[in-house]
Amino acid sequence: MSKKKGTRCERELFHMLYDKNFFPVRAAGSGSTPIPNPDIIAGKDGRVLAIECKSLKRDNKFFMEKEIIDLKLFSKKFGAEPWLAIKFNNKGWFFINPKYLSKTKSGNFYMNIKLAKEKGIDFKEFIKRKL
Amino acid sequence: MSKKKGTRCERELFHMLYDKNFFPVRAAGSGSTPIPNPDIIAGKDGRVLAIECKSLKRDNKFFMEKEIIDLKLFSKKFGAEPWLAIKFNNKGWFFINPKYLSKTKSGNFYMNIKLAKEKGIDFKEFIKRKL
Repeated sequence: MSKKKGTRCERELFHMLYDKNFFPVRAAGSGSTPIPNPDIIAGKDGRVLAIECKSLKRDNKFFMEKEIIDLKLFSKKFGAEPWLAIKFNNKGWFFINPKYLSKTKSGNFYMNIKLAKEKGIDFKEFIKRKL
Repeated sequence: MSKKKGTRCERELFHMLYDKNFFPVRAAGSGSTPIPNPDIIAGKDGRVLAIECKSLKRDNKFFMEKEIIDLKLFSKKFGAEPWLAIKFNNKGWFFINPKYLSKTKSGNFYMNIKLAKEKGIDFKEFIKRKL
């Protein structure tokens, strides 16, 4: 995925959250520093979401082990809920607890559209309920 | 203050916070979107800091009324403590509750080194205690 496409989907989610009265922050240089940072952190009345955000042309997505460990570490220390937000091409957004990722033999993680439909929730549900 | 200098002092504070086990996020495009965003948001075990960060050559600083209203609004909605972090040239960092800003006749706010010394706290105290 290009950097540009990543930024575009982050911006889309940023505005979706703001429209629902969350106050979102896009992290500057997310993924380019050794310090764990999610793509977006959003808060509303003390509920805090730490979000890794992806937009996909294909039906499956691999995540580096470090990316997921960092998301969980950041969330635990900050006091936030860790979430994956994946926009599959033509199938819209899915919000998924990272615990539902499958693990490859090499130690990395993946999510596909089948698993996302099974374990993920849509935006409406996402903003309503806690992890 | 130049954009570059702003970024440099944000980076310095980012690393100071991370060294003290806070998880900081620098906001992308802070100040350039109409959506309120602080320069840095940092969390540790559920304590969340929303920080406007300035570096000054002079001994006083004016803030636009909107900048302060936005910081307070963001903090209230997100569930964060609003803070001003000001690095005065050769005098180091001061962390100040925005309620201590003085107001000009035109409705804007200002902070100077005298007021910062009176009402501000240093980094050590800042990371220890709640607002």
